Amino acid sequence: MRVFDSNWMQIADYLERDDRVVLPVGSTEQHGYLSLGTDALLAERVSVEAAEPLGVPVLPVLPFGMAPYFTAYPGTMSLRMSTYIEVVRDLLDCLAGQGFRRIAVINGHGGNAPVAGLIREWINRPGADRVQVLFHSWYNAPKTAAAASRFDEDQYHGSWLENFAWTRVAGVEIPGGAAPVIDRAKAGNLTAEEMRAQSPDGSLGGAYQRSDEDMQLVWDAGVAEVRELLEKGWLDQ
Amino acid sequence: MRVFDSNWMQIADYLERDDRVVLPVGSTEQHGYLSLGTDALLAERVSVEAAEPLGVPVLPVLPFGMAPYFTAYPGTMSLRMSTYIEVVRDLLDCLAGQGFRRIAVINGHGGNAPVAGLIREWINRPGADRVQVLFHSWYNAPKTAAAASRFDEDQYHGSWLENFAWTRVAGVEIPGGAAPVIDRAKAGNLTAEEMRAQSPDGSLGGAYQRSDEDMQLVWDAGVAEVRELLEKGWLDQ
Amino acid sequence: MRVFDSNWMQIADYLERDDRVVLPVGSTEQHGYLSLGTDALLAERVSVEAAEPLGVPVLPVLPFGMAPYFTAYPGTMSLRMSTYIEVVRDLLDCLAGQGFRRIAVINGHGGNAPVAGLIREWINRPGADRVQVLFHSWYNAPKTAAAASRFDEDQYHGSWLENFAWTRVAGVEIPGGAAPVIDRAKAGNLTAEEMRAQSPDGSLGGAYQRSDEDMQLVWDAGVAEVRELLEKGWLDQ
Amino acid sequence: MRVFDSNWMQIADYLERDDRVVLPVGSTEQHGYLSLGTDALLAERVSVEAAEPLGVPVLPVLPFGMAPYFTAYPGTMSLRMSTYIEVVRDLLDCLAGQGFRRIAVINGHGGNAPVAGLIREWINRPGADRVQVLFHSWYNAPKTAAAASRFDEDQYHGSWLENFAWTRVAGVEIPGGAAPVIDRAKAGNLTAEEMRAQSPDGSLGGAYQRSDEDMQLVWDAGVAEVRELLEKGWLDQ
Amino acid sequence: MRVFDSNWMQIADYLERDDRVVLPVGSTEQHGYLSLGTDALLAERVSVEAAEPLGVPVLPVLPFGMAPYFTAYPGTMSLRMSTYIEVVRDLLDCLAGQGFRRIAVINGHGGNAPVAGLIREWINRPGADRVQVLFHSWYNAPKTAAAASRFDEDQYHGSWLENFAWTRVAGVEIPGGAAPVIDRAKAGNLTAEEMRAQSPDGSLGGAYQRSDEDMQLVWDAGVAEVRELLEKGWLDQ
Amino acid sequence: MRVFDSNWMQIADYLERDDRVVLPVGSTEQHGYLSLGTDALLAERVSVEAAEPLGVPVLPVLPFGMAPYFTAYPGTMSLRMSTYIEVVRDLLDCLAGQGFRRIAVINGHGGNAPVAGLIREWINRPGADRVQVLFHSWYNAPKTAAAASRFDEDQYHGSWLENFAWTRVAGVEIPGGAAPVIDRAKAGNLTAEEMRAQSPDGSLGGAYQRSDEDMQLVWDAGVAEVRELLEKGWLDQ
Repeated sequence: MRVFDSNWMQIADYLERDDRVVLPVGSTEQHGYLSLGTDALLAERVSVEAAEPLGVPVLPVLPFGMAPYFTAYPGTMSLRMSTYIEVVRDLLDCLAGQGFRRIAVINGHGGNAPVAGLIREWINRPGADRVQVLFHSWYNAPKTAAAASRFDEDQYHGSWLENFAWTRVAGVEIPGGAAPVIDRAKAGNLTAEEMRAQSPDGSLGGAYQRSDEDMQLVWDAGVAEVRELLEKGWLDQ
Repeated sequence: MRVFDSNWMQIADYLERDDRVVLPVGSTEQHGYLSLGTDALLAERVSVEAAEPLGVPVLPVLPFGMAPYFTAYPGTMSLRMSTYIEVVRDLLDCLAGQGFRRIAVINGHGGNAPVAGLIREWINRPGADRVQVLFHSWYNAPKTAAAASRFDEDQYHGSWLENFAWTRVAGVEIPGGAAPVIDRAKAGNLTAEEMRAQSPDGSLGGAYQRSDEDMQLVWDAGVAEVRELLEKGWLDQ
Repeated sequence: MRVFDSNWMQIADYLERDDRVVLPVGSTEQHGYLSLGTDALLAERVSVEAAEPLGVPVLPVLPFGMAPYFTAYPGTMSLRMSTYIEVVRDLLDCLAGQGFRRIAVINGHGGNAPVAGLIREWINRPGADRVQVLFHSWYNAPKTAAAASRFDEDQYHGSWLENFAWTRVAGVEIPGGAAPVIDRAKAGNLTAEEMRAQSPDGSLGGAYQRSDEDMQLVWDAGVAEVRELLEKGWLDQ
Repeated sequence: MRVFDSNWMQIADYLERDDRVVLPVGSTEQHGYLSLGTDALLAERVSVEAAEPLGVPVLPVLPFGMAPYFTAYPGTMSLRMSTYIEVVRDLLDCLAGQGFRRIAVINGHGGNAPVAGLIREWINRPGADRVQVLFHSWYNAPKTAAAASRFDEDQYHGSWLENFAWTRVAGVEIPGGAAPVIDRAKAGNLTAEEMRAQSPDGSLGGAYQRSDEDMQLVWDAGVAEVRELLEKGWLDQ
Repeated sequence: MRVFDSNWMQIADYLERDDRVVLPVGSTEQHGYLSLGTDALLAERVSVEAAEPLGVPVLPVLPFGMAPYFTAYPGTMSLRMSTYIEVVRDLLDCLAGQGFRRIAVINGHGGNAPVAGLIREWINRPGADRVQVLFHSWYNAPKTAAAASRFDEDQYHGSWLENFAWTRVAGVEIPGGAAPVIDRAKAGNLTAEEMRAQSPDGSLGGAYQRSDEDMQLVWDAGVAEVRELLEKGWLDQ
Repeated sequence: MRVFDSNWMQIADYLERDDRVVLPVGSTEQHGYLSLGTDALLAERVSVEAAEPLGVPVLPVLPFGMAPYFTAYPGTMSLRMSTYIEVVRDLLDCLAGQGFRRIAVINGHGGNAPVAGLIREWINRPGADRVQVLFHSWYNAPKTAAAASRFDEDQYHGSWLENFAWTRVAGVEIPGGAAPVIDRAKAGNLTAEEMRAQSPDGSLGGAYQRSDEDMQLVWDAGVAEVRELLEKGWLDQ
């Protein structure tokens, strides 16, 4: 249930019988030949598909995240960390104030991972109601990663692993073959300009595409893992 | 051209020939019987339709805004002002850093209006490239407001003026008749709880709906006015 | 009753019988030929005159506001928005902590208007006593604006409308005639340097002066409207 | 020259020949039987009298400072330190941006002293023009303190030392005798509530008043010392 | 070379010939039977031993980190994320301003990992000199983890892996046996109170101790891996 | 009792019988020929020696403080004031949350003194348990200063007064004689670059050294004064 396909009365009704909610968080950033919205589109879509049979509401994806190392590729938006943690704090505060007690933050972008630290801090905010918050990066969660690794161990930004029918750009032909792999150990130390120089098309390595059949298997694993989280990932209380 | 329907190379190409961009900003908040996403959906849609023939890229809507007075209606998200101005600052900084020089912020929510102050501050940030930024609240801009006023002077939150085919919620019947009008002079002083008590369904007054034909005329005026802004709203330099 | 003409014991006594207070907020900024303190002087004076017969205490005016677009005119001071909202928050917190329950912020400067958003947020701060806060820009409130419009529809920064005996500068001759009108739609997009280039004397348009008799009528309307607000502008509870 | 008695053109002219400016900072806080504005009134007045013969402009006093320990006395306003340092930073930035190169912050309130740390930080802000900033607490500067000590070594908040014709409140009779002295070593550890309990009238100790002749001598010393600072307190460069 | 065993002239000399520096970051937090300073002591010690033969200076450890989930165990100190990122930013700014161009942040505490995001942001700060920053969590870096895994795959907070002669507390007997393992997937969702209830002694699982010989092998691997980083972990430029 | 020589259980036990704790705060900054850690080393050492016989726990020294005026001397680290006050706030919050009710902040660096303002604000934070906090700059507290003044009234940064066996750097010869005294009244207005130009070795004036016997007398006075504070410096309640 997308929150944007609902009105407030429906959410109020839902809160009479359940207290779970999903907040997808993504990024607007270069993904090589793929959509600038890849991380946001996937986080939202995997959330919606996972939550659908459970009737859990899914907020609109937070489309902007932390991607300072990609800002030399036009179209990339990056929030400072000091900004990003306040956005997530505010959203958690609103949800808690309305009675949500189990919040799943479904993340589609590696650069957002530090916000998990803020979430742990938030859970311990003084004098507040007990609210559980899960932070789940869907694309490299154990079962999804295992599903992908059956095809290819190389799983890099902007490569086949993010190349779905719903992240491709109309009219753009994806290259065959594979991009050279950027040294991960050193990538964290590159400026955005250096990153663009090292990866002229934005792919950080590996094959550009796989068959839709293969991709569907990866996707199904991702959806199933998020759904399992929404069903069984909470603390018993 | 939606940024999410593009890859970064396409944006890079665009920047060779133009320097305009649109950032729609909305809100996730109660709209009575209508979608919780009304302000975000309309800001993004009016932006996309206006920009389409001009080829100007449109960022994904920032779906969360400032709506503290509606937080007692479940599903409403509100960022603190201190957070919101930093989000907008970061996005403007990214755009400026990539070569955009004319940015139109198309706003769909009255509560976001204070960010216009931040924009005026940002334009004057020290030591930076000259970047123009327009802040345009599409729904009450002069020509759009005039188009709406031909039908009804009562134009309130959650009423007919926001009731489009694309903001209604599937399966929800909209009442006929009109909601009682909340005293605007005093509404600013209401807490969220008091607001909900005064407006049990979230509509702040006036008729709930008009014909699709009437609404299309309002909508067309809104799109035309944003398009005119994108074409002629800039300072000559 | 100016707070600066009182000691704390008098304020403590007052709080035994009433819970209203006035916080005037102004700006230190260029006003063409008029005093750099125009907005502060007027906000404080209109507050003091309005509150006098009611016995409501008036704080000293906050003399600095948000005026980034005028900083190229020497003597203009501008606080960043992130600073300004914290100043107002702190003052509201102090007043609330001492038992004030109805606070009127009387504003003399258009650039301060965004703080109304902070006030709406503050009213909804969690876990706090219910405190009403009115934000009133005295110079363009309905009745005052109507009184001024009987004389001249052109009411711009630095023009006749702000030219009172108490905002003129000793020894400065005010020009006759009128300044050319700056295009309001585009003024919001000007940098401070551009603003100064477009308005060499700082007046944004219209006649520089009117007779003291005319001005007194405008002033009386302003005082009366603030007084009415202090008497009847509150929510019944 | 009060900035509020000037227009911007006069300040622009001044900057052609001089680059000094005075920013008085005070507090709105209990002062026993004396005005809640004592620290602000004195800081502004000593600045204006000192600067007058030199033609140096004096900004309006920043009337709100840091006084958390007095907030239990109604009428006391206190800014958080995080707020206060940003206000002062913004004002310094504005002045520097307009060409002022020697700024004297004349302080009237002990609780504001920590801002001297911010000033030292600001002087070292990266990449900026060299601007000198003096922070001078006029009331306990060496020569002024010496002048006062000739009369009485007890110089406490709310006592004779702050009791001038221009800080007394009309119609309020000041007690004869002396208030008991609060232990200074422990006063820093008192909450506002405890402070009020220990000092029921707000005076922290010592005689309540001296003759106007004595006070004039103290005052003259204060004015002279500020003037000397404005003339000779700067680094040679 | 500990910075605290040097004076500034020695650091100035060093900068004539090298531009590397080490900043150890730790935490003051419960470690079961072990010292509350375990993470700080180890981060500093591994840095000093690794840097010694290279002559690279090592700053004093930042002893406080982010550990909100352990605050129910007395003696645990935790900085908010908003604070912590500013501390690290300031330290990086100072180092960059003095000519350091290769900074290794050696981390001893898992909860500090989010600061890696700030570092990536900082590397891309606008208009600044190019400075490389490595963030290295020494205790689970590949070679150190491999060395430890030869002994035991269970490597949890407060267990054998942190139990060195230099993290034990004088006079405290460490239990034999092993603590029950806390479910890692769910641990992130525990409040500090729940954490203490689930782990009454603070160990999150596994054996409490191993022989000093085994521990020395782990330690040697940690030191060697940090040293290799300081020698070869940088980008060629 | 150093906290780093304890585990959490020992601190928990301590809290059953006492509620005092010591937080030493220092600085990493140039001290002429002496250790860059002088202020941190002394603050921690004086705390540990003073607290030892009382059994009061001493946290690890916060080694970084505010020293913007020394940043031109390599090895000096300086936190912005906005950062520093948040660090201290967080530490106080943690201590208060765990039951400490009497906190002594023992300061070793003049530039940190503004944090006393934050502490007074913190004591008055709303809605919190009553916690006493003393801020004590050990090196110029009355009795310690008196002990030093018996030897020499000149007591400046980087001179004899900070020259102990435990702040000297191995292998560094300290000059005989005395450094010229920097004008204190003007020193506050110097940039870091100017400071370094005026004080080429970093000593701000006076003799470089005295005999160990003299220094021990000063040190003993410092330890005794801190101990007296820990025993008798609190408010009776």
